[in-house]
Amino acid sequence: MPRPEPPYYAVIFTSRRTEGDNGYAERALEMSELAAQQDGYLGEESARDESGLGITVSYWRDEEAIAGWRKNLEHTESRRRGRAEWYEEFEVRVARVERSYGFTR
Amino acid sequence: MPRPEPPYYAVIFTSRRTEGDNGYAERALEMSELAAQQDGYLGEESARDESGLGITVSYWRDEEAIAGWRKNLEHTESRRRGRAEWYEEFEVRVARVERSYGFTR
Repeated sequence: MPRPEPPYYAVIFTSRRTEGDNGYAERALEMSELAAQQDGYLGEESARDESGLGITVSYWRDEEAIAGWRKNLEHTESRRRGRAEWYEEFEVRVARVERSYGFTR
Repeated sequence: MPRPEPPYYAVIFTSRRTEGDNGYAERALEMSELAAQQDGYLGEESARDESGLGITVSYWRDEEAIAGWRKNLEHTESRRRGRAEWYEEFEVRVARVERSYGFTR
C-alpha cells in the first residue's frame, strides 16, 4: 500500500474488459513493470471485481512524470490495443492528491 | 461508470480486510446507499480482488460535500467499526480530479 506524502498525483483508471484474454494479462503485467521504472513513479494498486469492473490507481510525483509515461512507446502501443481489443469501456481521471491518512492494525 | 465534468473530487479508499465478514457486507451496502443520498455525491466505483485488496473510489462535487458525508452519524459509527473489526489496513486519499477522458466501444 504506497503511502507517499501529499501533494502527488493519482491516475484513476476504471474499466470493463471485453470477453477473453487476447494477450491482455501478459501485457498488463509488462506495463506494470515498465511503469515502475519510470522517473516519478510512486506506486500502483489494482483490483478487478467478479462483476468485471477493474480499478487501477497509479501514483506519480507530478504531471511531468505522468506525461513522461504517456510518451513511452510500449505504453502508447498498449493503449492502442486497449481500445482495439481489450476494453468495452474505460475512464481515466488525473487527480491531485491533497491529503491522505491511513490505518494499520 | 460515473463521468462528471472536472473539476470535482475523488476519495480513493484502498483496504485489506480482516478474516470473516463480521457484518461488513451488509453495512457496506447500507453505507453506499446512504452516501448516494448526500448532497454533492457524484457516484462510486468499487472492486475487490481475489488477493484481498479492495479499492473504492467515491466522487464528490467539492470538499464541502466530502465533509458533510464525514459528519454523518451512521458513517462515523461505520468508520469506528472499520478500525475495530473490518480492516487490517487502509489508506484514504482525497484528490482533486483535474481532467478525465473516456472510451466506450
